Amino acid sequence: MDDMHYMKMALQEALQAKEEEEVPVGAVVVQDGKIISRGHNMTERLQDPTAHAEMIALTAAFNALGSKYLPDATLYVTVEPCPMCAGALYWSKIGRVVYGTDDLKNGYRKVAGSNWPFHPQTKLDAGCCAAEAAQLMKDFFKARR
Amino acid sequence: MDDMHYMKMALQEALQAKEEEEVPVGAVVVQDGKIISRGHNMTERLQDPTAHAEMIALTAAFNALGSKYLPDATLYVTVEPCPMCAGALYWSKIGRVVYGTDDLKNGYRKVAGSNWPFHPQTKLDAGCCAAEAAQLMKDFFKARR
Repeated sequence: MDDMHYMKMALQEALQAKEEEEVPVGAVVVQDGKIISRGHNMTERLQDPTAHAEMIALTAAFNALGSKYLPDATLYVTVEPCPMCAGALYWSKIGRVVYGTDDLKNGYRKVAGSNWPFHPQTKLDAGCCAAEAAQLMKDFFKARR
Repeated sequence: MDDMHYMKMALQEALQAKEEEEVPVGAVVVQDGKIISRGHNMTERLQDPTAHAEMIALTAAFNALGSKYLPDATLYVTVEPCPMCAGALYWSKIGRVVYGTDDLKNGYRKVAGSNWPFHPQTKLDAGCCAAEAAQLMKDFFKARR
C-alpha cells in the first residue's frame, strides 16, 4: 500500500534524527508518486525549537515546486503534528496529511481541541505505521531518563 | 514608554514588508533593553507561506543567543500571531509577547478558541500601537482589491 511505503520513508528520516540524538520524528512530502522533500527533527543541531521535521520538509517542498501552496501533495509524518506544524500545514493548503502515532502531550489537539487546524480542503489520516513511530519515541525518551 | 518604543521598531519592519509588497507585519525580539533580532513577512519573496515575521525574528533570536529558549525575552509583533506563530512562541518559552492589532480572521484564537496556545510562563499584552498596525494592514488589502 502506498501510504505504508511513504511512511516507511518518513520513518527512515526519524531514524536519521535518532542517530543525531534528536527527537525521532521524520516527514516526507509526496506529489505524483514522487518524494519532493524530506525532513527530520533538527531542534538540537540548530538550537531552534521550531526546526521540526514538518517545517523542514514543507519549506523544502515550497522550494522544490517554486510554489507557496501544495494542494496536490501529501505530507507523511511519523508523529501527530504539533500546533505550530498544524498551522504551517494550514498555510500550505496541502492536499493531505498522513500521520503515524498520536501525540497527546504535544499534538495539535492539545490547543485546537475539536477545532480543525488545517486548511478546509486538507484531508487527514492517522495511524499509518503507528506502532513503529511510537516505539521510536518511547525508546528515545526512555534512554534520556 | 518602552513597549511603544519597541513596537515602533516592529512597525518599521512592517513598513519594510510593505515596500517589498508583502503583507505588512513586523516583529522584533528584545532582551535586556536590546533588540536581538528583527523580522518581517517574506512569504512572497521566499514563496514560503511559513515565512512570517515572528518565525524569522524567533529563528534569528535563537541564533543570536545560541539558545533554544527565550524566557527573558519579549517579542513585539504588529499583528496578533497566527496559530503557527503562537505554536512557535510556545516552543520558544518566550517570557512575553506584545502584539498590536487583533486579527480575527487569521489570529491564533481562530483555532485555539479560549485555550492558551503559548507557554504557561509566557505573558501576553495586546493593543500596543494597534491603530497604526491595523491601518497598515487595511491599506495593504484595500490596494490589492
